[in-house]
Amino acid sequence: MATMLSYIVTDAAISPKALQVAFSAVTDETFNAITVDGDTSTNDTGILMASGAAGNRPINKPSGPDYRAFYHALLSVCDRLALQIAADGEGATHTVTVYVGGTATDAEAKRIARTIADSPLVKTAIAGCDPNWGRIVAAAGRSGVTFDPSETSLTVCGFEIFRAGTPTRYVAAEVAQALKQREVSIVFLAGSGPGKARFYTCDLTHGYITINADYHT
Amino acid sequence: MATMLSYIVTDAAISPKALQVAFSAVTDETFNAITVDGDTSTNDTGILMASGAAGNRPINKPSGPDYRAFYHALLSVCDRLALQIAADGEGATHTVTVYVGGTATDAEAKRIARTIADSPLVKTAIAGCDPNWGRIVAAAGRSGVTFDPSETSLTVCGFEIFRAGTPTRYVAAEVAQALKQREVSIVFLAGSGPGKARFYTCDLTHGYITINADYHT
Repeated sequence: MATMLSYIVTDAAISPKALQVAFSAVTDETFNAITVDGDTSTNDTGILMASGAAGNRPINKPSGPDYRAFYHALLSVCDRLALQIAADGEGATHTVTVYVGGTATDAEAKRIARTIADSPLVKTAIAGCDPNWGRIVAAAGRSGVTFDPSETSLTVCGFEIFRAGTPTRYVAAEVAQALKQREVSIVFLAGSGPGKARFYTCDLTHGYITINADYHT
Repeated sequence: MATMLSYIVTDAAISPKALQVAFSAVTDETFNAITVDGDTSTNDTGILMASGAAGNRPINKPSGPDYRAFYHALLSVCDRLALQIAADGEGATHTVTVYVGGTATDAEAKRIARTIADSPLVKTAIAGCDPNWGRIVAAAGRSGVTFDPSETSLTVCGFEIFRAGTPTRYVAAEVAQALKQREVSIVFLAGSGPGKARFYTCDLTHGYITINADYHT
């Protein structure tokens, strides 16, 4: 989360237990997979309320087709809100989606994704539209997750710029041009394991400094 | 460390083992207790070489008065170098020493100190000379170390601005004035335990963005 008060209402008829299971899982994938500057707020709040007014056949358990339909509807709402929070980060000029795959577990992938997404050197490189593979791979390397560089690859805005421990023969100007889009992507594969994760963040610009250094308590 | 190549030479006669024990311990307290932006470099290096040319009675073990004298001389050199690295952070206008005490262990204190020192919200507040106790206490709170807010206190540049979960009646203009010094201090006490740690960092300014967003690979 990133200083967020989120209130979501639904008219679905769903039991408190099923609602909680759905919301916890969705929050892990969305509101708990965003970062602006790595800081959090004591105000961070996510609340989901269901009135039952829709009159549907009640969803009493966190399983079955009705539950899954509800789950995916909730996921799409929270995913959109999470992306908007990252996009609305102080001074942001880019929204960045970091995908990590190929780790042994999802938790390892999330740890790498969070470290890349939180790195000030990565975030300033994105601000400057610089396909700086060294900063991204170095962030992955200090995440605490072990991987073999010879099995890695890194793709930025669809351009593979690093593979097996060395930069590819990409055309820097082409990737820099692609990085001028508002929404950009980083895909880091750490090996051939089944683990995967996604994190949203934004870039780090002069606007962030202006807003946060000039604000006084 | 923070993208650092450190080479230290001494003419002391000291065994490789005693030298390594001293250097590892000193590095933990100095080069591994600094942060500019939380990022690290694959180049981070600390090397200590001893020629023995001084002709002193050889220090063969990591104990005894001669070893302790050597240890403290080494500590003072590395401490000064570490502070200079933080002071030389990209765009830095303040050097910040973060002291944390009162935790159960030194490791817990270091974890809190590092989280405060790495927080972009704390670092921009220092850039703006804002005694923002909320950002500092919030960083301590998300460090992963458990503490009771009613047992905490926070002192900035010698002014206690927060105690037992609430701000004191400090005069904000006085603290802001003190924060205009180049070297500032943050002291956070988390309780009454024996743990303590110290971390050096710098503030986060427009200079950091200019240097790191404009640099291209």
